[in-house]
Amino acid sequence: MKRALEQKKARRPAAARYVIGVDFGTNSVRALVVNVANGAEVGTAVFNYPSGVEGILLDSRNHNLARQSPLDYEAGLRKAIRGALGQARRQVGLSSARVIGLGVHTTGSTPIRCDAHLRPMCLQAAWRRNLNAYAWLWKDHTASAEAAAISAAARRQRPHYLAQCGGAYSAEWFWAKIWHCLNVDPQFFAATHAWIELQDYIPALLCGIRRPEEVVRGICAAGHKAMENPRWGGLPDENFLASLHPRLARLREPISAPAQAIDRPAGYLAPEWAAALGLPAGIPVAVGALDAHLGAVGSGIRSGTLVKIIGTSSCDILVTQEAVPDIPGVCGIVAGSVLPGYYGIEAGQSAVGDIFRWFVSNICGGDDRLQEQLTREAAGLRPGASGLLGLDWHNGNRSPLMDPNLSGLLVGLNLHTSRAEIYRAWLEATAFGALTIIRRIEEYGIAIERVVCCGGIAAKNELFMQIYADILKRPMYLARSAQASALGAAIAGALVAGAYPSGPAAIAAMTGVQRKVFRPRRSQVAAYQELYALYQALQQAFALCGPPPLGGLMKDLLQLKAGARGLRSTT
Amino acid sequence: MKRALEQKKARRPAAARYVIGVDFGTNSVRALVVNVANGAEVGTAVFNYPSGVEGILLDSRNHNLARQSPLDYEAGLRKAIRGALGQARRQVGLSSARVIGLGVHTTGSTPIRCDAHLRPMCLQAAWRRNLNAYAWLWKDHTASAEAAAISAAARRQRPHYLAQCGGAYSAEWFWAKIWHCLNVDPQFFAATHAWIELQDYIPALLCGIRRPEEVVRGICAAGHKAMENPRWGGLPDENFLASLHPRLARLREPISAPAQAIDRPAGYLAPEWAAALGLPAGIPVAVGALDAHLGAVGSGIRSGTLVKIIGTSSCDILVTQEAVPDIPGVCGIVAGSVLPGYYGIEAGQSAVGDIFRWFVSNICGGDDRLQEQLTREAAGLRPGASGLLGLDWHNGNRSPLMDPNLSGLLVGLNLHTSRAEIYRAWLEATAFGALTIIRRIEEYGIAIERVVCCGGIAAKNELFMQIYADILKRPMYLARSAQASALGAAIAGALVAGAYPSGPAAIAAMTGVQRKVFRPRRSQVAAYQELYALYQALQQAFALCGPPPLGGLMKDLLQLKAGARGLRSTT
Repeated sequence: MKRALEQKKARRPAAARYVIGVDFGTNSVRALVVNVANGAEVGTAVFNYPSGVEGILLDSRNHNLARQSPLDYEAGLRKAIRGALGQARRQVGLSSARVIGLGVHTTGSTPIRCDAHLRPMCLQAAWRRNLNAYAWLWKDHTASAEAAAISAAARRQRPHYLAQCGGAYSAEWFWAKIWHCLNVDPQFFAATHAWIELQDYIPALLCGIRRPEEVVRGICAAGHKAMENPRWGGLPDENFLASLHPRLARLREPISAPAQAIDRPAGYLAPEWAAALGLPAGIPVAVGALDAHLGAVGSGIRSGTLVKIIGTSSCDILVTQEAVPDIPGVCGIVAGSVLPGYYGIEAGQSAVGDIFRWFVSNICGGDDRLQEQLTREAAGLRPGASGLLGLDWHNGNRSPLMDPNLSGLLVGLNLHTSRAEIYRAWLEATAFGALTIIRRIEEYGIAIERVVCCGGIAAKNELFMQIYADILKRPMYLARSAQASALGAAIAGALVAGAYPSGPAAIAAMTGVQRKVFRPRRSQVAAYQELYALYQALQQAFALCGPPPLGGLMKDLLQLKAGARGLRSTT
Repeated sequence: MKRALEQKKARRPAAARYVIGVDFGTNSVRALVVNVANGAEVGTAVFNYPSGVEGILLDSRNHNLARQSPLDYEAGLRKAIRGALGQARRQVGLSSARVIGLGVHTTGSTPIRCDAHLRPMCLQAAWRRNLNAYAWLWKDHTASAEAAAISAAARRQRPHYLAQCGGAYSAEWFWAKIWHCLNVDPQFFAATHAWIELQDYIPALLCGIRRPEEVVRGICAAGHKAMENPRWGGLPDENFLASLHPRLARLREPISAPAQAIDRPAGYLAPEWAAALGLPAGIPVAVGALDAHLGAVGSGIRSGTLVKIIGTSSCDILVTQEAVPDIPGVCGIVAGSVLPGYYGIEAGQSAVGDIFRWFVSNICGGDDRLQEQLTREAAGLRPGASGLLGLDWHNGNRSPLMDPNLSGLLVGLNLHTSRAEIYRAWLEATAFGALTIIRRIEEYGIAIERVVCCGGIAAKNELFMQIYADILKRPMYLARSAQASALGAAIAGALVAGAYPSGPAAIAAMTGVQRKVFRPRRSQVAAYQELYALYQALQQAFALCGPPPLGGLMKDLLQLKAGARGLRSTT
């Protein structure tokens, strides 16, 4: 009934205006055409990155490396936007002239090394075979040593830098990656001009911007990943960067204009891209942001609501209008990073869906069908009945430990332990990790009344949602849109087009939650509280803060591993 | 050349005499016909137990339960002995009249509840559906609570009982199982007459013994599993048993004659069995012993040699003529339990092959072919290169922790961890467990010069042997016989037949090791020493002796598990 009504509204092309959201994910890019009035999604298309392994360029000698090809991004822009517009034309008779704005979000921190004309270095024949000349994907963990050194330097010289990003700088972030490139490949580093975040590179590309100095950077990646803050005049100062390495200080200049929120245009669609995409030239393109932050927008973020964007990893986003204390282990607190006028708070787990997929595929040797079967079997188990308990640190721990050099652990195995039991133990472990983050945030006085999830795992896996409700002891909602991130990007497009007076007004009109709500079940809650106490004991013992020898054991293993593989240790 | 010579010798039936060894394993029974002069194996046959899952009667509600059907044993005796004799007839023209003796070993402690005519209770229609009326297989772990109570009572009242069996009584052993039966099924318990160990039941059956009081018990199970010792007049005294439960004291009487070593006859082959098997009536049948102890005999045990019988679990056997101090965590030190005139020392690991099979089959969903593939892949890895470290406690820890309420643990997992890496980590974990046992024994002044292995895993898996050599830092030998346990039983048959003046004389003539020796490789030894230090840290933290909360964490998980499954906790 409601859907029929929406379709009817959408079928009045004379009255309707549209925006496009583009969502650059880890393995693919999606475009979504949205009705500005009500958020109705009228056309979508996905393009899978053709390069590497599911779009990721890997190095078999170094598991920490993950790069991407900017050519995949360009091809994806064309295919996904044209595909989505075609579907909207067939579904609601959309005319491209009714598209009034465009928003973009990407993974990050995903810096790209560019020349003076804003062209990625890998497009030059000389560097085509050098993985450092490609985009350094968010989950590239090669820069652990540099991240630790940045944390140490900031702790001594600029403690306020660290307080904004949870007390430690991450190997996944901008300056660590850049410095690592300088350390391992100085020759390549010398040949180039500027490093641009993917979230800023794509809008600049669409708007025909040709010089790094003219790129309008978004505060989302700048604030959360590059330590930018108006309180200290933008990016880290040159003296601090020079104290890391003199050549890092020179990188500040080309990207030093203040970063902006998503209600500001990055520019206007360039004629060549308008022609390629079949869109009106000159429509505004919003400043870029990170996928999770716009996912929160598309999921209906507001004060008191935690939005969890759950995919390969998880991002947890909150907004608040009040001044926020520094929260150790929360990755970032940045004014305007989600919505103008609000502090954006970001935390997250380094691996969620990645753990389930790894277990089903790498260990059980199965596919999606096996995952569905294990989910069914696991749904029949009761909390604690397997005797298993896991630590979900397969990809390190982002919040609250901020430590990439940790590893996954499973205890309680016996000779009858089944795959379904282990699979459920990993689901539970990620939920315990999620609870740890919520508790940390609440300890600092920020109330979390409800949790809204988006992302494929949340939408497809009811067991996942129910276990989270039981462990987080809160009702779990699902965002109405299955493409909440792309919807959030479209909302940014609506804001720069002037369709709404504020972010909250656009969110109220264009987003919602699904009817189905997962509520905590009393009997399960009690059992999980006991298990969580044991999870905390494991966490305390194996985190670096734990006493030796267990406190350092995961790092000792990583050091032995690096030694055995002939690599420089990353710890 | 040598083999041809042996065959030539074996082909002289006029000169040759033969003995039969019968090996009751966990899943099957094997008979072996052996030339008394040189140990040449001239005929063998295996019978797989037809009942339950691979011969084991299970209870899906209680993973700790494992029982067997005595009917399987009887059928196995007939089929295996006749099969082995048939093969010997075809191979060397053996005449059954040349068989001069017979030896038996079985798993244990595997007690069977019998009536006054020595018939297992499950043969009575009234009890046919009651699993308590069947043989309580060694790996039945239902009696954890009773084992803990026996340990506690002995610690207070009879500390010398415990000193002989490593400082703790095990849930796998005689009195714990019997008491558990009394606790959970008093009605059945009341209806019966005596509990007989499987190692004693089989020789008695073959010799036509009809009363429990006439069974000649072997010192091997009695000493290692039932706390019998001539120092305190045999089995535990009635006052001690009565302090556990008045009805336990009454069980001592029918089985109170002193237990004997394997050079004593349990009796002489009864006419009905002689006819059924096609053997001369009246040949001597040796006193029974446990599989591992006769496996050690068949592998060439002598002072300074550790024999490891490696199958689903491992048994480690040593002999020494000198008085042995009490060694905490070593399961038993019993005069005459392996060879007359020697102290027998037994230790072991609760799961070895079981862990590999569980991982390949239950978790990876594969079969023997996958195990071979994983072995090949794992062989290409270097120590430490996976970053993984495991605790091999899936079935508890027998030596040196004597604690069934522990569980397996794996740390160091990441999103690239492969099956082969985990498989190798489990191989390594069992080797670290084996090293821990050797170090404990050596701390008490018993030198271990060489290690001889027998059992299928050792014979088939070169990677297993090489990893053990690298981790134990000792050459690893393989017993020449692929059926070392059955050969040991045959040697017992030769001893009771008077063919040799002593155990060592029979062993020298009838056993040997293979030419292929696995020697420690220096580079691997160094890496494994670092990993072993971390294994020790994990072991100390998670064993009960560790400080809380980790010291009790495995038990807390087991308690939650029992609660979630509606079972009485076993901890």
